[in-house]
Amino acid sequence: MAVFAHVTVSVDGYMAGPDISAQEPMGRGGARLHEWIFADNEVDKSRVQDTFAAVGAVVLGRRTFDVGLDEWGDTPYPAPSFVLTHRAEPDREMKSASFHFVTDGIGNALTRARAAAGDKDVVLMGGETIQQALRDGLVDRLNLQIAPVLLGDGLRMFDETGHYELKPLAVTVSPTVTHMQYEIVR
Amino acid sequence: MAVFAHVTVSVDGYMAGPDISAQEPMGRGGARLHEWIFADNEVDKSRVQDTFAAVGAVVLGRRTFDVGLDEWGDTPYPAPSFVLTHRAEPDREMKSASFHFVTDGIGNALTRARAAAGDKDVVLMGGETIQQALRDGLVDRLNLQIAPVLLGDGLRMFDETGHYELKPLAVTVSPTVTHMQYEIVR
Repeated sequence: MAVFAHVTVSVDGYMAGPDISAQEPMGRGGARLHEWIFADNEVDKSRVQDTFAAVGAVVLGRRTFDVGLDEWGDTPYPAPSFVLTHRAEPDREMKSASFHFVTDGIGNALTRARAAAGDKDVVLMGGETIQQALRDGLVDRLNLQIAPVLLGDGLRMFDETGHYELKPLAVTVSPTVTHMQYEIVR
Repeated sequence: MAVFAHVTVSVDGYMAGPDISAQEPMGRGGARLHEWIFADNEVDKSRVQDTFAAVGAVVLGRRTFDVGLDEWGDTPYPAPSFVLTHRAEPDREMKSASFHFVTDGIGNALTRARAAAGDKDVVLMGGETIQQALRDGLVDRLNLQIAPVLLGDGLRMFDETGHYELKPLAVTVSPTVTHMQYEIVR
């Protein structure tokens, strides 16, 4: 059981373009980052399937929830999903699982997510959530997809998020993206 | 013949730690990035050898020259090396080749470097030099080594350096670093 961040970044380190909105949830030019998810090759397909199979619970930020919900039409993974927010809301039951709104911080969200995940992993979604978890030392693994593009501007994935030695677990190369998995050494 | 940037970055995109000085040319904690260069494995050795064999001329920034000269005790590669500077200086002859000081900009430095390189490639060294060349559209290829560390702070490699689609040329994995080569599509 591990807590992992799962995110696609450009070679210049952006996880979204500038001007994120509900209309452009990945920001201007940022949809380019996720092209690999729809690529028709076995490497990428099997990485997507492996990730889906590993996830037992999700912790995501409010903004990721707001801009992503229409696209997903469901929880982002078929697993209980804990939304970090300042505003309490009743649980929202979706097709695969429920959204739960957590108002008492990322540590408590992770405690609930770990309990819900059982033997499976907890995935962190969204820039601010991953950054906060890194700063608080709550991340076990990084799953980074490096998309072959320089965005030049946008939302940085890493921004003074702490000094950690990493242990490479796997690098998998597809025609569309490079999948890099690291363990965070503490 | 190509102009390529050659640089090692941390997973969070820093090419040096904070507080760069002659005593710590890679900044605080930044020497970690270059450990792979001294690694005893065939993948890294052959990547170093291939790069040395490809380089016919060097363009580097003044700061890189100032902080690197003691460590190199020579030109950084055995090839004519053009230093971008505001202060004219006579050529400086080293063991393998000479340093030439260029005061009329990166475009002119690259023209002289291309002429000196013949059929070989021109390598760009140093953060500001690479960033400026990217902004001016003067880079053909990126050779990035991704070291398995999050530095958390330091000198960013990419910083609003333009929007470019990339074409992956090769990804080579060693136990110590991931070598990524991209062509910049224009």
